Amino acid sequence: MSELTLNDMENAVTRLSGVLHKTPLQRSDTFSKTAGTDIYLKYENQQKTGSFKIRGAYNKLWEIKQSGNITNVLAASAGNHAQGVAYAATVLDLNATIVMPKSTPIAKIKATEGYNAEVVLSGDCYDSACKFALELAKERNAEFIHPFDDKSVIAGQGTIGYEILKDLPGVDVVFVPAGGGGLLSGISFFLKSINPRIRIVGVQSEGADAIYHSFKEKKLVSSDKVCTIADGIAVRTPGTLTTEIISKYTDDIITVNDNEISSAILTLLERCKQLVEPAGAASIAGALKYPDKIKGQRCVCLLSGGNIDMGFVHKLIDLGLAARGRKLKFKTVLTDVPGSLEKVSKIIGESFANIVRIQYDRTSADLNPQDVFLHITCEVSDNEHGKKVCKNLENSGYRIITE
Amino acid sequence: MSELTLNDMENAVTRLSGVLHKTPLQRSDTFSKTAGTDIYLKYENQQKTGSFKIRGAYNKLWEIKQSGNITNVLAASAGNHAQGVAYAATVLDLNATIVMPKSTPIAKIKATEGYNAEVVLSGDCYDSACKFALELAKERNAEFIHPFDDKSVIAGQGTIGYEILKDLPGVDVVFVPAGGGGLLSGISFFLKSINPRIRIVGVQSEGADAIYHSFKEKKLVSSDKVCTIADGIAVRTPGTLTTEIISKYTDDIITVNDNEISSAILTLLERCKQLVEPAGAASIAGALKYPDKIKGQRCVCLLSGGNIDMGFVHKLIDLGLAARGRKLKFKTVLTDVPGSLEKVSKIIGESFANIVRIQYDRTSADLNPQDVFLHITCEVSDNEHGKKVCKNLENSGYRIITE
Repeated sequence: MSELTLNDMENAVTRLSGVLHKTPLQRSDTFSKTAGTDIYLKYENQQKTGSFKIRGAYNKLWEIKQSGNITNVLAASAGNHAQGVAYAATVLDLNATIVMPKSTPIAKIKATEGYNAEVVLSGDCYDSACKFALELAKERNAEFIHPFDDKSVIAGQGTIGYEILKDLPGVDVVFVPAGGGGLLSGISFFLKSINPRIRIVGVQSEGADAIYHSFKEKKLVSSDKVCTIADGIAVRTPGTLTTEIISKYTDDIITVNDNEISSAILTLLERCKQLVEPAGAASIAGALKYPDKIKGQRCVCLLSGGNIDMGFVHKLIDLGLAARGRKLKFKTVLTDVPGSLEKVSKIIGESFANIVRIQYDRTSADLNPQDVFLHITCEVSDNEHGKKVCKNLENSGYRIITE
Repeated sequence: MSELTLNDMENAVTRLSGVLHKTPLQRSDTFSKTAGTDIYLKYENQQKTGSFKIRGAYNKLWEIKQSGNITNVLAASAGNHAQGVAYAATVLDLNATIVMPKSTPIAKIKATEGYNAEVVLSGDCYDSACKFALELAKERNAEFIHPFDDKSVIAGQGTIGYEILKDLPGVDVVFVPAGGGGLLSGISFFLKSINPRIRIVGVQSEGADAIYHSFKEKKLVSSDKVCTIADGIAVRTPGTLTTEIISKYTDDIITVNDNEISSAILTLLERCKQLVEPAGAASIAGALKYPDKIKGQRCVCLLSGGNIDMGFVHKLIDLGLAARGRKLKFKTVLTDVPGSLEKVSKIIGESFANIVRIQYDRTSADLNPQDVFLHITCEVSDNEHGKKVCKNLENSGYRIITE
């Protein structure tokens, strides 16, 4: 295979133009204030299919279409790559088959079928789905589209580097989420080729850090298992080609943990009004982790995608509200007679707290027979408000045991 | 007071330029597909302070600053107007006092104080806070900034019309959220003055429809009470000036209900990756309500703001997940002996459903003494998946009573 060249990049930019979105790059007041330097966000969560993966898939499929002798493409993925290949195939009038693990949520299957792809379920995990996909590709005479270790895919992802440079020519540092390394290698190669002064920092999840180790140990390293909320960058074995390019063109790779990612997702939602998936928010978590290293520099954080399950967003908000003292949990002792609940709930209501859960416990060993424990969960404005609610109850003679 | 002129609008455009964001206007594939016509979204939720209110406030305060003899401004608001006035005052180096009702959440007070405004708490509701604010303005020799019924404020909000026209010269219809009428009157006046062919439709909440009635009955109508999730447009009495302009320049006003608004918020979050407050999502709910009326027309929906409490987002997602069959609730009968829970939870786990709540009920009148009711809530992929989980349990002899 020939080496990746700037010409490949320029071709990809031309092909994608007008078909995919040139996503916005905007300065964030909130994150600039937190980091103490200029932080710009590249909103690739606004890209068609909700992630950058469509760039590489489209560029690859365009070349396949151009070659003229292949009409079937096939990929293995339960995520953004599946939607990217399916969408690109529809636009270019190719037939796409996507192999997904059997445990894939029905919503994701339907989204991929919505882009006219045939979905085949196989295997219990990505690896076994992928193994089957390679067999099926042979059987169906279909071209297998690798999610990252492919020159044309890498060139497609690298077009983001072109857009960043166009919108912010004076950029100093770019933070890029990294899993298999397609996005990081493409952007690193492009930006370093144009301007070697720009620093490129890859950001991995602590629970899936194969590229981090490959970069530090200067050889391809696989992880036995991956465990992170950032499913978009949870890859066991990075690519051979991507690792090679990254080792030449990337300046550094750092890792962040799931709590740092969750916190970035919530701030993006609350302050920037944007929904970003965990892999996408990793770039911000990375930029905020070592603020001393970016002082006085114009940083771009790449928000690589926005495909996140609503059930998971729900859980993240729940945890975020608890962490900010917006949920008050306590138990108190009531006399086990009619009217007791009314008295205590009156005080809580008058303290502007909203009860969301009540549970009675009549069977604790440390209860007097005439008493009952009442477990209460309330919504309050913050810790201060929570303390005031407890104080008001104590002033009326209630014993508060916080939980 | 002199009449509103195009010159006022042009001045406002010049003043705001470079200080506030020119927010993006983007076509939405999702909503265009749903509506069967081209739907563009104007992302004013991305504006500084998270809403359009800063436009009017900045334009008004710029004029006050220019006059040279006033240094104090004062407003009554618990929402976006408060943050708009506070931010504009900081930029223009004026002193801002904001009067808020005593029940205002601490988060909102802190956000307003964060823009260097002095916050004074007074009264139990907006009306009594406003009454006190007028007194305090006299006492402090401060200029009272009305949230909508003011020519300069209206001109500021109208600058959105200028941006829409610049980005989409061929626009046919614009849907605008309406409460007090500042935004609707400003945009209607500007667009109709430039191109009378463009249709402007105001969207109100069913639970707060004073402008709707004022428009239809051709006289200023107040509501006795307002009840809607769209707090940003929950206004009892629209403005005199705004109503006058709207009656001349607006084509129609329609109403939407809270469920329609909630559904629009969730789709915006899930598909467009954007957080929009209920008032802002009303414009989309309005456009989708009568699809036959917009066939073949290029529509713009104005997403007027993104300031929505995380606790409320949490609740909306919860209801949305339930509506889509993502929460399975049922009860079943277990034999009240050790090991019973293990058996039933094994089947549920093997059906890929995630248990989130379990409750025992030993005291129902229709239970045999050796039995117990178990109430279970699970997360599932959709209705189909939920049915499969129940089927698997029934095949193992469990009786399922859905709740």
